[in-house]
Amino acid sequence: MTDYDYIRDGDAIYRKSFAIIRAEADLSAFSEDEADVAIRMIHACGLVEAAAHFQFSAGFVEAARTALQAGKPIFCDAQMVAHGITRARLPAGNEVICTLRDPQTAELAKQVGNTRSAAALELWRDRLEGSVIAIGNAPTALFYLLEMLDKGCPKPAAIIGMPVGFVGAAESKEALAEGRHGIPFAIVKGRMGGSAMTAAAVNALARSGL
Amino acid sequence: MTDYDYIRDGDAIYRKSFAIIRAEADLSAFSEDEADVAIRMIHACGLVEAAAHFQFSAGFVEAARTALQAGKPIFCDAQMVAHGITRARLPAGNEVICTLRDPQTAELAKQVGNTRSAAALELWRDRLEGSVIAIGNAPTALFYLLEMLDKGCPKPAAIIGMPVGFVGAAESKEALAEGRHGIPFAIVKGRMGGSAMTAAAVNALARSGL
Repeated sequence: MTDYDYIRDGDAIYRKSFAIIRAEADLSAFSEDEADVAIRMIHACGLVEAAAHFQFSAGFVEAARTALQAGKPIFCDAQMVAHGITRARLPAGNEVICTLRDPQTAELAKQVGNTRSAAALELWRDRLEGSVIAIGNAPTALFYLLEMLDKGCPKPAAIIGMPVGFVGAAESKEALAEGRHGIPFAIVKGRMGGSAMTAAAVNALARSGL
Repeated sequence: MTDYDYIRDGDAIYRKSFAIIRAEADLSAFSEDEADVAIRMIHACGLVEAAAHFQFSAGFVEAARTALQAGKPIFCDAQMVAHGITRARLPAGNEVICTLRDPQTAELAKQVGNTRSAAALELWRDRLEGSVIAIGNAPTALFYLLEMLDKGCPKPAAIIGMPVGFVGAAESKEALAEGRHGIPFAIVKGRMGGSAMTAAAVNALARSGL
């Protein structure tokens, strides 16, 4: 009936977690700023080995930070991503937008012949310019973004492309990493990714340091 | 400028994903019902190897399903877990409750000397009896639940204990798996876990079959 022995202070838990990750993870491929993002992503999945699959394009961290500091919105493909972003960390009260459950999305999905996750991006167009994209769930959303860009839609400042899964996830991230639109990006290669890692990346970018 | 080659139909993506997981994952440790839960959890993290860390106590799936069908609430430690639960799958319009941002929680955290994630559970007491618990983020929440049970709080019907991370996650799940209160449980042993796997487990339990 005795209490368990564990740390009950949130800040102390974070500090110890980040210290363990720094000690165990191979972060040698990353700049200091990239490493901070990587550490929070590892923290979100509990797997230091995941770092081997992280890829940041040149200038990604700076582009995303600059956009956030300028108050640009963050577009998310899933409610879980949106709800994983810590509003208090955002530098300019940035809007966090997910249009998946917008009343127009189901009809748009029929019109464009794609999933609701993909069709929801049609509602981002007007504010895409200079924004930060956080795709952490649906490969179809990332593919659809690339198709919109191919057709000339306004360019976001940075793309976090981390959909998870077994069908299209690896392929959609490979397509993003081709970099044909010159937009800085971060991906988790292969099947891993997900809303928690994606939100963690946004949270790391929202403020420098851990 | 050509479109990418990928599946654009949500149902087809699910079917193919689950088929790949069945083909690749070692599900031999699980009953048929447990395997359905395991498949959705693997789907959420993109890692078939994760199955080796899943543990379901005897009677867990049945206890959780019975509680959900009886309309019992689902208590979540994090907004991300709550937002990952597909409401349309729930069998009885079950309430999905997260008290982390309740106005009382910050003050309760000071009173009980623990994190807000843990203190938020104080607001679950009145409806804990027979409920389904879904802890996918904070080890302190799971430890605190065990402490409340040690002190005689009402018993939930089933506990999904899948906090993720480097400090306390493995230990809190080990403590749950001691099973000292006789409550059926599901865990992901070690550091892995998280809101997506936890919500996926609830979604699998909400309805039999995939």
